Amino acid sequence: MAETWLPSLRTATPQEGFELATKLARVGVKMTQPSAELRDKLRAAYEQDSAQLIASSQVIAIHFQTVAAANGYWRE
Amino acid sequence: MAETWLPSLRTATPQEGFELATKLARVGVKMTQPSAELRDKLRAAYEQDSAQLIASSQVIAIHFQTVAAANGYWRE
Amino acid sequence: MAETWLPSLRTATPQEGFELATKLARVGVKMTQPSAELRDKLRAAYEQDSAQLIASSQVIAIHFQTVAAANGYWRE
Amino acid sequence: MAETWLPSLRTATPQEGFELATKLARVGVKMTQPSAELRDKLRAAYEQDSAQLIASSQVIAIHFQTVAAANGYWRE
Amino acid sequence: MAETWLPSLRTATPQEGFELATKLARVGVKMTQPSAELRDKLRAAYEQDSAQLIASSQVIAIHFQTVAAANGYWRE
Amino acid sequence: MAETWLPSLRTATPQEGFELATKLARVGVKMTQPSAELRDKLRAAYEQDSAQLIASSQVIAIHFQTVAAANGYWRE
Repeated sequence: MAETWLPSLRTATPQEGFELATKLARVGVKMTQPSAELRDKLRAAYEQDSAQLIASSQVIAIHFQTVAAANGYWRE
Repeated sequence: MAETWLPSLRTATPQEGFELATKLARVGVKMTQPSAELRDKLRAAYEQDSAQLIASSQVIAIHFQTVAAANGYWRE
Repeated sequence: MAETWLPSLRTATPQEGFELATKLARVGVKMTQPSAELRDKLRAAYEQDSAQLIASSQVIAIHFQTVAAANGYWRE
Repeated sequence: MAETWLPSLRTATPQEGFELATKLARVGVKMTQPSAELRDKLRAAYEQDSAQLIASSQVIAIHFQTVAAANGYWRE
Repeated sequence: MAETWLPSLRTATPQEGFELATKLARVGVKMTQPSAELRDKLRAAYEQDSAQLIASSQVIAIHFQTVAAANGYWRE
Repeated sequence: MAETWLPSLRTATPQEGFELATKLARVGVKMTQPSAELRDKLRAAYEQDSAQLIASSQVIAIHFQTVAAANGYWRE
């Protein structure tokens, strides 16, 4: 992954921060399984498995903690 | 998701913060499985599976940490 | 849930804080499965499943982090 | 649980803090399954299940974060 | 592991921080299973198991919290 | 466990901090399963189970957060 995909953790709004957290969760999977073809095949299965959807939501939640802290919770 | 669904992490009370955390947990699932129809089908199953209910409660707990910190724990 | 069930995260002692964390973990389940009847049925099963008991203990631990921080760790 | 079992999160040393974290993890299980008899029966099983031992270790780790923060990491 | 593999948690950019988090997650596995041969064999299996890919992504997320905090979220 | 095994959370380097986190994860298992003989037997199994290796890596990650914070992220 030579290109820049994460220049900053700052986002304009909490909602964009949530979208960034979702992206980070996906990149975490990509780091372990780099083949886009295989990931697409796996996605078809886990998108219909509620336990895995909840687990994905949990990874997003952990990243959202980081992104929210990085943005001072968008308070200022 | 073009509309604004998360304008702020601030809530008036801890209880509203908990409700926001619940919403964030659900949006996390929606990010991975955008089809409302499929999510409804899955929900019917996992609502009767205690392990998945506990897992859902855990995702809410992680988001509640973020929301509580964003609100200074509603102390001031 | 129109009534107020979480007016504050402050508690007088760490022990009461732990009890509040336990309550938050339960409300998290209730948010996903609102039927008390169904929750009671599920409880009968998971109370005898050690993996789910450990998972419940984990959700309490996450909420206890939040409650403890909200109370300045009951230091002052 | 009317008696006082958690008067404070302060401990003299990190090691005592780790022991307190272990106690908190156990009380979290007790909160969900109050029967000592049943817990003993379940313990016999999960003590031989490495996945559950790792899960228990994780709950201790989460509580240890809280206890360590409460003690200023025993730095002062 | 006598050689130095973790001289610092500082990285120049968030993206490098994410890569460091990925490395920490892998070293965590190596700490428990030191045999590179066995890890390679296991990898072939779990790279095709979406639940384990999500779990790996979660470990990266936890480490990324640490690395991001260590770098002041790359704000300054 | 009468002897002192955790005198401090301070380490000279991040790498030693990671090793301490690994130790804490192991002691957490020992707290629940004190028999060294049984733990060795279980280890033989879970060392070949990638899901459990990832779970172990996660417990290390949680402890590393604590150790890193205790050391001010080895910044000063």
